[in-house]
Amino acid sequence: MTNGSQNRPAPRIPAGVRDTFGADVIAFRQMVNKILAVYELYGFEPLETPALEYVDVLGKFLPDSDAPQGGVFALRDEDGQWIALRYDLTAPLSRVVAQYGVDLPTPFRRYQIGPVWRMEKPGPDRFRQFYQCDFDTVGTASMAADAEVCAVLSDSFEALGIERGNYLIRVNNRKVLNGVLDMIRLPIEESPGGGVQRLVVLRAIDKLDRLGSEGVLELLTTGRRDSSGDFTPGAELTTQQAEVVLDFVSAGSEDRLAVCSRLRELVGDSAVGQEGVNELEQIHRLLESMHLGSNQVVFDPSVVRGLAYYTGPVFEAILTFEVSEEEGQRRPFGSVAGGGRYDDLVRRFTGTLVPATGCSIGVDRLLTALKAIGQLGIDEYLGPVVVAVLDPKRLSEYQSMVTELRSAGIAAELYLGDANFRLQLKYANRRRSPVAVIAGEDEFGRGEISLKDLRLGKELSKGIKDREVWLRDQPAQISVPREQLVEATKRLLER
Amino acid sequence: MTNGSQNRPAPRIPAGVRDTFGADVIAFRQMVNKILAVYELYGFEPLETPALEYVDVLGKFLPDSDAPQGGVFALRDEDGQWIALRYDLTAPLSRVVAQYGVDLPTPFRRYQIGPVWRMEKPGPDRFRQFYQCDFDTVGTASMAADAEVCAVLSDSFEALGIERGNYLIRVNNRKVLNGVLDMIRLPIEESPGGGVQRLVVLRAIDKLDRLGSEGVLELLTTGRRDSSGDFTPGAELTTQQAEVVLDFVSAGSEDRLAVCSRLRELVGDSAVGQEGVNELEQIHRLLESMHLGSNQVVFDPSVVRGLAYYTGPVFEAILTFEVSEEEGQRRPFGSVAGGGRYDDLVRRFTGTLVPATGCSIGVDRLLTALKAIGQLGIDEYLGPVVVAVLDPKRLSEYQSMVTELRSAGIAAELYLGDANFRLQLKYANRRRSPVAVIAGEDEFGRGEISLKDLRLGKELSKGIKDREVWLRDQPAQISVPREQLVEATKRLLER
Repeated sequence: MTNGSQNRPAPRIPAGVRDTFGADVIAFRQMVNKILAVYELYGFEPLETPALEYVDVLGKFLPDSDAPQGGVFALRDEDGQWIALRYDLTAPLSRVVAQYGVDLPTPFRRYQIGPVWRMEKPGPDRFRQFYQCDFDTVGTASMAADAEVCAVLSDSFEALGIERGNYLIRVNNRKVLNGVLDMIRLPIEESPGGGVQRLVVLRAIDKLDRLGSEGVLELLTTGRRDSSGDFTPGAELTTQQAEVVLDFVSAGSEDRLAVCSRLRELVGDSAVGQEGVNELEQIHRLLESMHLGSNQVVFDPSVVRGLAYYTGPVFEAILTFEVSEEEGQRRPFGSVAGGGRYDDLVRRFTGTLVPATGCSIGVDRLLTALKAIGQLGIDEYLGPVVVAVLDPKRLSEYQSMVTELRSAGIAAELYLGDANFRLQLKYANRRRSPVAVIAGEDEFGRGEISLKDLRLGKELSKGIKDREVWLRDQPAQISVPREQLVEATKRLLER
Repeated sequence: MTNGSQNRPAPRIPAGVRDTFGADVIAFRQMVNKILAVYELYGFEPLETPALEYVDVLGKFLPDSDAPQGGVFALRDEDGQWIALRYDLTAPLSRVVAQYGVDLPTPFRRYQIGPVWRMEKPGPDRFRQFYQCDFDTVGTASMAADAEVCAVLSDSFEALGIERGNYLIRVNNRKVLNGVLDMIRLPIEESPGGGVQRLVVLRAIDKLDRLGSEGVLELLTTGRRDSSGDFTPGAELTTQQAEVVLDFVSAGSEDRLAVCSRLRELVGDSAVGQEGVNELEQIHRLLESMHLGSNQVVFDPSVVRGLAYYTGPVFEAILTFEVSEEEGQRRPFGSVAGGGRYDDLVRRFTGTLVPATGCSIGVDRLLTALKAIGQLGIDEYLGPVVVAVLDPKRLSEYQSMVTELRSAGIAAELYLGDANFRLQLKYANRRRSPVAVIAGEDEFGRGEISLKDLRLGKELSKGIKDREVWLRDQPAQISVPREQLVEATKRLLER
């Protein structure tokens, strides 16, 4: 606590976090509720875990260093143990599965919505506290769980009013890429000194959107010098090897079974590659029985996202409608969800492999998208009916009006400040109130109240030519007998 | 990340925090939604602030010490500035009001629900992360805002099914106590060396429930030695002075206006005391116009909670129904909400006084109370309908059944593990599924499906005498044509 004006703290928040007000909180909540209803329809149960976890449990602790590795907000508890704010919802899920084990149903199907924290460089679209909204099925190797990921995403988007054609779920399989790399005889990760080359290949594929296939070809082979003169070393594949990889990457199409056929050729007799293609075919059949067409879910080997981390099918959901960038260019909105199958969920704790698959919707980004297409009715957010106070001696009478409105389920409030009538109306507009209730000496004398339709008032005031006439006639204001307060307000709200 | 079995981290959570699963998360959410609906009915708008704030903004930083004062989880950011997890929702509100100032509507009426963190000694009912659910009106001195606090609390409890008579809102006023202490000529806080004695008086009053009026009399005068021999120094009032304080403390009754009359006598000609009584009278009149009777809101001068912090009316809501303590004794459930008027909300930042009043519902504790009286239907929480997989080759057909159920809005899932039928049913019971859908070779042959009513099954199995007969007749299981899947399931769900 500081004393004296010199020592007053400045009211401010740390970089990369933000405050959210009224309409935006409501819009976010409405969006999330619709998504969670879909998760529950699919049988997922909610889980809540604490924001703080032990750092070694989160798996971001470097034993050699005094402080945990950058990226997490960490501190020591009173026993000197490092604890940190969770950076995602998967690490806490791993901990829960390892900790509760057989006390959980198997498979364990949970969803979790909540903030996560990352100590990264903040940017216009990169926050240090943001929400994740995950669903995962733990304890099954069945492709039905993976196919379902696509269905949950698709149903969630459609529940939010994103029409078919405006979203696309792209599916890839880590095993198929491994099969392709086996075929061109690249050393596997587990081999001594192996894996580095495979990682460089992954990174090269990831740049397809930006560099096109020629750029990727350079990165797969001898390396690439960009326009600024910077040189990125290549994966040192032969041209023949690189062309197989490029064939794989460009094998996507609208026909899921055709993609599977092409991939089956590319993986040749690689066992893991064949397994990957079998998995995609199984997913295809299950998608069919869930009526998910190729305008909703496609197989696309160019999806790299997290391939290094996942062990089987990988998912990415994109919104395909275009939005304006800062420079005025239009481009597709892009990725809003990602996930996949990972089998080492609890191995860090127990040493055993537990198959799991799931996905995370980036709900902050999704809200941005919904605003861009005018969904969610954010503009129609309405504040309470405001009962103006014209005669402070009659406070109890004004309060009774408010109570009547609330008893009828109408959000309402008494104006609680001490401003004049004009400022009270300004306040009501500021709060996006639909209606102001007005009763001064005249109205009380006649046993009436006046209701001002603030929405209509706003519309009309846009088109006024003669301000004098408008002020005299007050077309947005009506008078009714006092006992009709609730009825008349309801009529104005319903219009 | 650790390697090798020796180095595996134990899956565990820090002391004082907890995981919450399925039914409990849903129950909490339902409870909170009902409360927030009341807050919105009263015109409060939601606000969300980040979990992390600068420590000097929270007001818990001791400039002489290297680390912030105990009680908050704090760490240094990359610029070396101390940041911490918020310990309540009032400090962030102060910051928001100081930071956004005139950009906010005045009065600013906001609610906020969210976790707060305190690094205190954990106990059975004391957590290091818990939820607060606050509503405040900032920028008005009107007693209408204070009267409304009582109405919001009362409506919230009743929305949750807590009947009138099972809750009581107790109101006190800091100014009245100040008036009483003025009358007995106790130095005021702002005077040199003053205030200490007043604080000791407050602490003595706070022990009325535990020690009775005789014990309090000792603490107000010469001090008190308890049964263990420990001595607590007294406030050193004369017996006459102490008796005035005791008269004040015991002035509460069911008749709010009678309490006001008695208090007016006790504060004599103290200006602040008279003002306090006037405020209570105003609140009474507003409570009347909101139809809040003395079985809902009483004036009780023995309510001390936060009196040292607040500057006017103070509120405490208690639940009066009895619950069993660990020792088997029955006692009233007690306090679940508290608040009051405080005028120095933003003075720390701006130097100006801003009048504000509000209240916080302790929603974790409230959920415990609702469980105790069997509200919220926690026992009726139902999991998804589970479609059992008897023939893995028919996965797509089972998946189609699941899709049909979901399309009809019925939460459903395919059993995704690889257990036998008996374990699948166990899983369904574990998930609190109401119905299991069963289709094996027989059913497929006849074009039928079987539905097992798991709720009925559970009821029946409680009373079985002849297990053999029960197993043969399967009274909780019915067979219907395949195309009646949705209809028949709905019928079972509706019973």
